[in-house]
Amino acid sequence: MYYVGVDLGGTKIAVGIVSIYGKLLYKNIVKTEADKGVKTVIDNIIGCINGALDSYGISISNVSSVGIGSPGVIDSESGTVIAAFNFKDMKNICLAEEISKRIHKNVFISNDANCAALGEVTSGAAKGYQNAVMVTLGTGVGGGLILNGKLYEGGGSKGAELGHIVVNHNGRQCTCGRKGCWETYAAASALVKATKEAAEKFPDSILAKKVNESTTINGKTIFSAINDGCDIAKGVLDEYVCYVAEGLIDITNIFRPEIILIGGGISNEGEALIGPIRSYVEKNSYGAGLIDVPKIERATLGNDAGIIGAAMVAKLNTIK
Amino acid sequence: MYYVGVDLGGTKIAVGIVSIYGKLLYKNIVKTEADKGVKTVIDNIIGCINGALDSYGISISNVSSVGIGSPGVIDSESGTVIAAFNFKDMKNICLAEEISKRIHKNVFISNDANCAALGEVTSGAAKGYQNAVMVTLGTGVGGGLILNGKLYEGGGSKGAELGHIVVNHNGRQCTCGRKGCWETYAAASALVKATKEAAEKFPDSILAKKVNESTTINGKTIFSAINDGCDIAKGVLDEYVCYVAEGLIDITNIFRPEIILIGGGISNEGEALIGPIRSYVEKNSYGAGLIDVPKIERATLGNDAGIIGAAMVAKLNTIK
Repeated sequence: MYYVGVDLGGTKIAVGIVSIYGKLLYKNIVKTEADKGVKTVIDNIIGCINGALDSYGISISNVSSVGIGSPGVIDSESGTVIAAFNFKDMKNICLAEEISKRIHKNVFISNDANCAALGEVTSGAAKGYQNAVMVTLGTGVGGGLILNGKLYEGGGSKGAELGHIVVNHNGRQCTCGRKGCWETYAAASALVKATKEAAEKFPDSILAKKVNESTTINGKTIFSAINDGCDIAKGVLDEYVCYVAEGLIDITNIFRPEIILIGGGISNEGEALIGPIRSYVEKNSYGAGLIDVPKIERATLGNDAGIIGAAMVAKLNTIK
Repeated sequence: MYYVGVDLGGTKIAVGIVSIYGKLLYKNIVKTEADKGVKTVIDNIIGCINGALDSYGISISNVSSVGIGSPGVIDSESGTVIAAFNFKDMKNICLAEEISKRIHKNVFISNDANCAALGEVTSGAAKGYQNAVMVTLGTGVGGGLILNGKLYEGGGSKGAELGHIVVNHNGRQCTCGRKGCWETYAAASALVKATKEAAEKFPDSILAKKVNESTTINGKTIFSAINDGCDIAKGVLDEYVCYVAEGLIDITNIFRPEIILIGGGISNEGEALIGPIRSYVEKNSYGAGLIDVPKIERATLGNDAGIIGAAMVAKLNTIK
């Protein structure tokens, strides 16, 4: 038997055929068309599942159950997307039931960041760890918690919103309505914003030259400027590192996990990003020098983590 | 059979005889004499236990096991106090074993804030809740977590340090070495400090009059001035409330517990303190208006929570 994992994104839907051991066997990707409304999104999920099954040469009868990782506020107990802000009309939609009706299989749903954490613990950089936290630095900051070997979603599956812990009271405005949330400082998008601002402020810097020469300014830009010896860029990264680390210290002081994984495109910068973060966390965690701090490593599965994790949500719900 | 709960404080040791249902049957209190070193503290604990047993008219053979709630960094798996900063020489002391050797019973140990939470869940304001958080606003801010009906101590029993999550990057200096920790803003001692500062800054205010007339300035002073119509005092409390609430929102966004209890002497102010905190949390939590927020209530057991919780640590370790 196989599990199907669905990673529902704002722009793309990725469906994977996953073995019971968490190996991604086949992957199919289609556009989400989130702006066209819920019916279209559901049709696209079904199309993407069927396409994956066909291409891999199996039928739905070979599938044990289906898991979906979705952005937004999820009630995993009832399989409902309470709100997914980037999707048209996706409010209080029992997505699990809607998909289940069409494919006649049990369907389970969890937050996409939770799925990514579960994927990395099953098959990625946190394989074998019982207590692991995954943090994805992207447009926002997603968080997933594995406690005592199990996915921890918080009461009513509405917790684990690690991006929405405050690091600066009355700080930057967050999309959640609050001010000073970690994700307003630690998201990759915050680094990109800081990159642009520094380039404008210091027009003669190496960084400004990089920015002006580039068609796209992204998380790589700052590292490229640092490699060319730009002190302005180094200052921008140093500040970003502090903010990322502040949230990781909170996570350390609360959970003291064995390992913290950093995901998102920017994590591909590897030690240039993670080295200084690790050093800051080691110095500033509660009981520094007396208590071990978690390992801090790069997530390794990339976008596949969410697919594998979604399939593992299906597996865990099926066998429990 | 009975359980013995020991609440080890910096100035007092409180020992309780506790029923298997978490009822405090008898309480004995002695001085800790923390400045006299570990041997004296252990002697005092033993003396306090024996005194309680004698007075209640039972012997150690009627006791199933003993639990200790201790401040500081605790390794509950090995029964060790790794560091308790207010105690002379209390560093890497296997207190559980030291006590066990003297009374020939199994002894277990946990952080005092964890014990308080367990006490309130067993017999106090959070009785019957499976997911509860207790926050004690005192000299610092202590935190205890009950997740799925069990005490959650974090990896290696070194987590749940809720007072040491940041609310202001580069903010006030914390005793833990970090800057901007929640406890530097939300501890009752922070409110007392703000009270004194406001009284100095506004010498003609009602608050200043109260402060100058009082022999002791404590958490009550600000409420007394507000009752007399002092706007300066109201401003001080409003700011304090924001900071307390910021940490509670973090806790909500991560754990989404059913209930959050507020303990510490200042919680005796009741709704004058808790009402505005509740209102701020409801408005600013993630998914406000879409997701239920936890109840926020006053802890009811006072100092007994720690004694009962310590006894319950013994019970849980004995029956597991």
